[in-house]
Amino acid sequence: MADQFAASMASVEPGSVPALRWEEPPEGPVLVVLDQRRLPAEEVGLVCTDVPALVDAVRTLAVRGAPLLGIAGAYGVALAAVRGFDVVEAAELLAHARPTAVNLAYGVRRALGAYEEALKDGSGPAQAAAAALAEARALHREDAEASARMAEHGLALLEELVPGGGFRVLTHCNTGALVSGGEGTALAVASAAHRAGRLRRLWVDETRPLLQGARLTAYEAARAGMAYTLLADNAAGSLFAAGEVDAVLIGADRIAADGSVANKVGSYPLAVLARYHHVPFLVVAPVTTVDLGTPTGSEIEVEQRPGHEITEFTVVPPGAGAEPGTGVPVAPLGTQAYNPAFDVTPPELVTAVVTENGVVSPVTRAGLAELCGRSRRGSGSEPA
Amino acid sequence: MADQFAASMASVEPGSVPALRWEEPPEGPVLVVLDQRRLPAEEVGLVCTDVPALVDAVRTLAVRGAPLLGIAGAYGVALAAVRGFDVVEAAELLAHARPTAVNLAYGVRRALGAYEEALKDGSGPAQAAAAALAEARALHREDAEASARMAEHGLALLEELVPGGGFRVLTHCNTGALVSGGEGTALAVASAAHRAGRLRRLWVDETRPLLQGARLTAYEAARAGMAYTLLADNAAGSLFAAGEVDAVLIGADRIAADGSVANKVGSYPLAVLARYHHVPFLVVAPVTTVDLGTPTGSEIEVEQRPGHEITEFTVVPPGAGAEPGTGVPVAPLGTQAYNPAFDVTPPELVTAVVTENGVVSPVTRAGLAELCGRSRRGSGSEPA
Repeated sequence: MADQFAASMASVEPGSVPALRWEEPPEGPVLVVLDQRRLPAEEVGLVCTDVPALVDAVRTLAVRGAPLLGIAGAYGVALAAVRGFDVVEAAELLAHARPTAVNLAYGVRRALGAYEEALKDGSGPAQAAAAALAEARALHREDAEASARMAEHGLALLEELVPGGGFRVLTHCNTGALVSGGEGTALAVASAAHRAGRLRRLWVDETRPLLQGARLTAYEAARAGMAYTLLADNAAGSLFAAGEVDAVLIGADRIAADGSVANKVGSYPLAVLARYHHVPFLVVAPVTTVDLGTPTGSEIEVEQRPGHEITEFTVVPPGAGAEPGTGVPVAPLGTQAYNPAFDVTPPELVTAVVTENGVVSPVTRAGLAELCGRSRRGSGSEPA
Repeated sequence: MADQFAASMASVEPGSVPALRWEEPPEGPVLVVLDQRRLPAEEVGLVCTDVPALVDAVRTLAVRGAPLLGIAGAYGVALAAVRGFDVVEAAELLAHARPTAVNLAYGVRRALGAYEEALKDGSGPAQAAAAALAEARALHREDAEASARMAEHGLALLEELVPGGGFRVLTHCNTGALVSGGEGTALAVASAAHRAGRLRRLWVDETRPLLQGARLTAYEAARAGMAYTLLADNAAGSLFAAGEVDAVLIGADRIAADGSVANKVGSYPLAVLARYHHVPFLVVAPVTTVDLGTPTGSEIEVEQRPGHEITEFTVVPPGAGAEPGTGVPVAPLGTQAYNPAFDVTPPELVTAVVTENGVVSPVTRAGLAELCGRSRRGSGSEPA
């Protein structure tokens, strides 16, 4: 179960928002996740003492964002192991808590693999649990390092694509420290540009229906002292038409082997607008987001979310586990809604995919495979 | 001042929503406007006994929609005249209540013209007031007739562009009976298709920030018994990509002489998506929306609305006159927002402009001028 406490999150440093942390005894072993549903109004930690509590936090978007889901999944497996629950069952539950992000299953697999390998090598349950926890910590650390490298590659690419002056960057959804062990993906690039004195304006799409842009990206941008402006997603077209956007920077929930990018719904319309206006459309994601087992975009399963996220407004966002009928209705009773969580952008609309291992541009199947081969743990060899 | 009463609006027929009505004594003379801010939850009439009350209703979007604004403007002039207020001052106030819709100023001009002409012809104030009221009623009637003709032309065009099967039509904002003396503009075409058994699906964009799609179009579609589905504006791209949209139907707040269309923000991104997916993008508007005095789209003044419409959620929409700080914040305090009410779609992205006088396709300056010449009252001659 998850208990809420606000105290220990209150002392976070400006610019550093701990989206997730592992606590040892006496408080733990527990996994504490920042409840992103309550931002920007309150910083509340959810203390997950078992996997069902964590699964609930994942399903209700208290913890969200592709890279962070991977880290949470790995720690979840470790939590089950350390506390003596059924580890395989816990892994199964976690891996399927949400369907679109490939990182979640990846994180689960890594921790479970370390756990099972330890058992196979003759370790007892406690040592195997320690191995799972070490693997989760390794993934957490790797993700922070990957953030830093994505930021570096992304900033270099921006400097190449947008010569001179400061960058006016449009972003969608939330891809910062709240989704990552480090500074995130797309927003990490904007942060690096900001630190380098090169970010002229961060345009923040509010990102309906759950307003992750308004609630989370604006929160991170404000903490970091960036020059940012919030807009209704509908107003992005006006910015493009006025020549006010130098580049679009978004993250990804899954990238198929052909380079198709599944990301928060509303990303694809931005890609079409960017192409129409000859503006670079850059996807920033760790290589763990690339799923070589998904050949093309059409094989990506897109999560359909409940209609009441559209037909009602709730103070705590409805993805946050609010029941239908508890919000303020903004549409007639009985209105049916179409509410896909993600959309898929084909590779021909993506100027570049920026990963911790480098940049693929143009986005090709071979280029992606090469980058993934370079880094995927367990793949062993470097490409020739 | 405006009093509220709910009783007399409760008996409206399904499918017929009186957006505005003139009441003679003993209740009047007053203008009663349906308070569109309270829909879909409540049907409340605002009783305007003077022009400042009506201007307030216009500014706060209690009464909205280009054609209806024209009718309201004309009745407003009549109201001032009948009640013995300064008619020229009232006309001035009304004409500038909102900047983008050309119809508002047009309606004001028509009623004021009739009033002044009557005075010039030697009528007394009472007769001149009666002339202004007669002109407002004529405009109201003409608008209802124009709706019917737009619906007819639009349906014929749809049948030509989308042969066979039923139409799956995407619409944005609200363009139905709530904006018109009749059934509206774009939504009137969908209604005609529905009555003809040809409407397979009406896709209703929720239309952030003020949710006119969710609140108003869904309300009208439900009353008319249409098969409709609501979506976050962001999800329109997914529908196009899935081949689920046969045509886009929108209204217009102003059409420049070159065919550039100012309409609710979010229309332009739909036009770009429609072009990318080879889907017809149809603008339905009465010829009074065409402003031959505005040469191109870049001369159209786009209303910038307050940032708190984006940064806060209010139960009564914030356009409705709620003060900043009275809603639920959905972004950090101090967040700056970019909030244009409209955007401008260039003629090359518009498949056709449908008016009561016929269809212009492709959209050219000459074609538009010809249609306007055919109908503009007072222009006298038909084109050669």
